[in-house]
Amino acid sequence: MLTQEISAAKKASLKLGVLSGEEKNSMLAALAAALEKNAEAVFEANRKDLKLAESEKLAAPLLKRLKYDAAKLSASLDQINGIIAQADPVGRTVEHRLLDDGLELRRVVFPIGVIGMVFESRPDALVQIVALALKSGNAIVLKGGREALETNRALVKLFKEALDAAGYMSDWIVLLETREDVSAVLKMDKEIDLLIPRGSNAFVRYIMDNTRIPVIGHADGICSIYVDAAADIPMALKVIEDAKTNYPAACNAVETVLVHRAAAEAFLPLFNSRMKEIGVTVHTEESAFDREFLDLEIAVKTVESEDEAIEHINSRGSHHTDAIITEDDGAARKFFAFVDSADVFRNCSTRFADGFRFGLGAEVGISTGKIHARGPVGLDGLTTSKWLLTGSGQTVGEYASKPYKHIELPLDGDKAL
Amino acid sequence: MLTQEISAAKKASLKLGVLSGEEKNSMLAALAAALEKNAEAVFEANRKDLKLAESEKLAAPLLKRLKYDAAKLSASLDQINGIIAQADPVGRTVEHRLLDDGLELRRVVFPIGVIGMVFESRPDALVQIVALALKSGNAIVLKGGREALETNRALVKLFKEALDAAGYMSDWIVLLETREDVSAVLKMDKEIDLLIPRGSNAFVRYIMDNTRIPVIGHADGICSIYVDAAADIPMALKVIEDAKTNYPAACNAVETVLVHRAAAEAFLPLFNSRMKEIGVTVHTEESAFDREFLDLEIAVKTVESEDEAIEHINSRGSHHTDAIITEDDGAARKFFAFVDSADVFRNCSTRFADGFRFGLGAEVGISTGKIHARGPVGLDGLTTSKWLLTGSGQTVGEYASKPYKHIELPLDGDKAL
Repeated sequence: MLTQEISAAKKASLKLGVLSGEEKNSMLAALAAALEKNAEAVFEANRKDLKLAESEKLAAPLLKRLKYDAAKLSASLDQINGIIAQADPVGRTVEHRLLDDGLELRRVVFPIGVIGMVFESRPDALVQIVALALKSGNAIVLKGGREALETNRALVKLFKEALDAAGYMSDWIVLLETREDVSAVLKMDKEIDLLIPRGSNAFVRYIMDNTRIPVIGHADGICSIYVDAAADIPMALKVIEDAKTNYPAACNAVETVLVHRAAAEAFLPLFNSRMKEIGVTVHTEESAFDREFLDLEIAVKTVESEDEAIEHINSRGSHHTDAIITEDDGAARKFFAFVDSADVFRNCSTRFADGFRFGLGAEVGISTGKIHARGPVGLDGLTTSKWLLTGSGQTVGEYASKPYKHIELPLDGDKAL
Repeated sequence: MLTQEISAAKKASLKLGVLSGEEKNSMLAALAAALEKNAEAVFEANRKDLKLAESEKLAAPLLKRLKYDAAKLSASLDQINGIIAQADPVGRTVEHRLLDDGLELRRVVFPIGVIGMVFESRPDALVQIVALALKSGNAIVLKGGREALETNRALVKLFKEALDAAGYMSDWIVLLETREDVSAVLKMDKEIDLLIPRGSNAFVRYIMDNTRIPVIGHADGICSIYVDAAADIPMALKVIEDAKTNYPAACNAVETVLVHRAAAEAFLPLFNSRMKEIGVTVHTEESAFDREFLDLEIAVKTVESEDEAIEHINSRGSHHTDAIITEDDGAARKFFAFVDSADVFRNCSTRFADGFRFGLGAEVGISTGKIHARGPVGLDGLTTSKWLLTGSGQTVGEYASKPYKHIELPLDGDKAL
């Protein structure tokens, strides 16, 4: 049953991959209209999820994430419209070269195919993921948190019904409901092209260790801010406070502060008293530097040099987002060059590491790997390319005795197909 | 010992990553000069390998690949000079955006870090891989075929001595000698950023199943040529002959021919008699379509439609390189759109699937995966990027009440660092 659904999604993905930008935008508009019209059914399902979650004593911040109400609906509609407004990521020629007379090569952007996405109990995430998958021409296999099951079912049902009613394909959306479904999907490396797990460190590692399917995402988010000898101290305090308290549970929140010996005397008393004021616990024990607190806790350490700070970040951090506070351009250049992380910042909060803030429109997650996408993953991260070569009967044998021309041609938009 | 060598390579990779194009080219020139000067030592080592291989009755084509003589040396020098001539793939700004006044984002190309490459018994491959790694700023952990061990040792020794003598880093090259070394490396997912295995299907699958490190490459190379109803039959015969016989052991050689029912009567008698003439065995049994012959054998089948051909290629092929022979633009467009392979060709040989022929200068391999690089992998496939954000004290909190500007800025070359 699941196998059939996923095989159907694989077939659908090939058709989805060659739809025009206009067709995909019409489908997105149909999703938005259906969501607005049938909001009450979604709210009703969400109330069931919330009731069960309350009876299971889910923590207040998790209940807040689980809730899908008029405000969340309005944000979902804004997100879908934002995605409609973005350029079609698919179909562009990104390399174009004449290999010889009558032998023309193009590299053209295509969707990846079928993407498996496992995400936390946030129904608004489901809406965003479906919209991003559609805009990028990918089929999507979804598994949300079990707390949001009724809401996710209601959302997928109304999306599929809206697409069917308007005569569009709908079998490119598959909702998984159980852990057994996820285990089965991990084995389907012929059908699923990419997995993007979000959630706990242990869960992401479990996925990575149990599948042959490529995985992008991040396990830890141990982000650091290094306060350089040439730091503006009030700026450092302001940036650290934002990076720690703006959303402590986020992966781009700061966990570690490193301060250069030359700045420590001026910085540390102000830092310690400010952290106390705002209720942040300061750790100095060595083991604290391997922890992702995800809470109002922070680790601090004095280093003898910028080199020591970089070495600490590269060996103890998680290659996610790290910042330097400095007025010294040379120190900033060195930090940019040698910190081996997806996002490297100067004089601003680590919390800027986000697809929307970066101007990518939206993101499916943040990758700390170096393969495919690195940092916030937007629509481009959901694409790949094909090499299309058009000849007029050429054989390789004939080029044993004549050279290739290799003349670059203009990147003439989406004229490839 | 191996662990220390690989840790040193990891550290060296960060320094290698920020060398200028000129510095890397000077190092490449030093490698070429040393190779030319010490050729006799390499030839001597190669004679030992050849002698042992002959005593072990290695097949003639494999002996030919193993041989490293004056002709192979000359080709190696040409390759190094070709790589010197290419643009530096590292340091370019590929996205550049003002998020707000005084908050400037760049995405800048960086090397991947440490690349693990396992390759067949061809000493010239070692030279090319080392040169490509250096040009792209990556440290390289190499494992060549055991038949070439003496030659590989001699090459790595002379490269390291030449770099040391000229005062350059040399610890970015690590040569593995045993299978146990390879097993150890598969576990080093903190140090090794990417694995590129070349070799047998079974070997590549073994690597993929036994490591958490990302792997790119291909297992099978079952390439097809579809002779459409609107094919030019003499062209089809000429292209198929080249694709089968130019180098039958290559991954981009054709294994399967599909012919449209409407062309079968005209095509098949000519095809069968030509294959007989040139010594190619023709298979028609169903199981032949899952075989990578790597030899003068080919499978042929009549299909009722282009759709059936595409369905066959997507389900039985290996998503490597597939071609259509047709004079019908519509049929070609459909083939380009729906064949889910790295390389999709019209009216030319599958053997064109190659980094050099594509104008990429050189390749480290061909990827049939859709993640990171797809098709021939050149210098660009050995790079990733970092997001560098320069602010002036901005916090995310302040943007709760004001919008981002998101103004695109010029891609001003390599001014990022």
